[in-house]
Amino acid sequence: VPVGQRYEPALSTESLIKRAASLVTDSTQTFLSQATYALVESLTEYTKAVYTLVSLQQKYTALIDKMNANEESAIWQVIVGARVQMTNLKERYLKYDSCWQRAVSISEMAAEAAYQAGADEACVGVRNHIQLVQTQVSESRELALKAEGKLAAAQTEEIRKSLAEDKDRSPDGGSPRIIEEEMPEAYLRED
Amino acid sequence: VPVGQRYEPALSTESLIKRAASLVTDSTQTFLSQATYALVESLTEYTKAVYTLVSLQQKYTALIDKMNANEESAIWQVIVGARVQMTNLKERYLKYDSCWQRAVSISEMAAEAAYQAGADEACVGVRNHIQLVQTQVSESRELALKAEGKLAAAQTEEIRKSLAEDKDRSPDGGSPRIIEEEMPEAYLRED
Repeated sequence: VPVGQRYEPALSTESLIKRAASLVTDSTQTFLSQATYALVESLTEYTKAVYTLVSLQQKYTALIDKMNANEESAIWQVIVGARVQMTNLKERYLKYDSCWQRAVSISEMAAEAAYQAGADEACVGVRNHIQLVQTQVSESRELALKAEGKLAAAQTEEIRKSLAEDKDRSPDGGSPRIIEEEMPEAYLRED
Repeated sequence: VPVGQRYEPALSTESLIKRAASLVTDSTQTFLSQATYALVESLTEYTKAVYTLVSLQQKYTALIDKMNANEESAIWQVIVGARVQMTNLKERYLKYDSCWQRAVSISEMAAEAAYQAGADEACVGVRNHIQLVQTQVSESRELALKAEGKLAAAQTEEIRKSLAEDKDRSPDGGSPRIIEEEMPEAYLRED
């Protein structure tokens, strides 16, 4: 059996596989870049929306004892709108988050396949890329978490102050009561 | 908050992701094609090598009681060479087998990512491709298994006949004994 002859096509098969594995790493890197961009951008938009709500909430809390029923209702409508916006942006970033997780998994598999196919450079390239985007994403996540923390603090403050307000006003009764009964419902929607 | 304005970049992000996911399916399909070609080709080469060994084994068995020690040793050398060749080709196809498994896994993930990104056609394309190559590979595997079955039968037949031969010759003793003691060692190497 002519061993040399038999192994020539094997070598060429090997180089074709190596090339195909490199192509996979190229396309997964593009996919990973796009998914990272989408996730970071949507996290940033979400974070902005959270801060918008924090700021509205703080204004509401500051004015709670200075507004009449109509003013309170008006600012509450704005807060509800900002909450809806924040929820939409949260859904959007969660969608891109799962897309990004998939992109990372595919990239890891592509790196492994490239390594096994002898395309070492392609493998190292993908692994570095994965590390880079993981850092980027975790930074964006931290900013979003920080914003969520501020929102929780602002809400706690508002509840504390509106309970105090309630106590002060309770002998009078009347319209503020109605508004305060609407609030918990609006909170329950999101939390 | 101008909702329409805010969602325009989202749409374009979505289409970029969809396109990137389609590119991943393209490259994984190329990789899967190459890996399938390599696996089927190496399985076929291995199957041929098994049949070569079957044929040599059968010749050896047919001539076992008609050869002198030198003739037996000569044909045995050829059998050992064919076994080495078969083992090499088995290692080669096992290597391509794990490459192919990886290619199938990556393709499945790419199909899922394409589906999630809304690239339905790309997803269906990959899934059909996976089914097709799974059929191709299982056909090649069956042929290899069939060959291995024939080899096992030929080896059993040879052992049976050489034991009978051994019994017939035992009163004489001498050189055939040595060759028969070499055989089990050669078998142990592969089995």
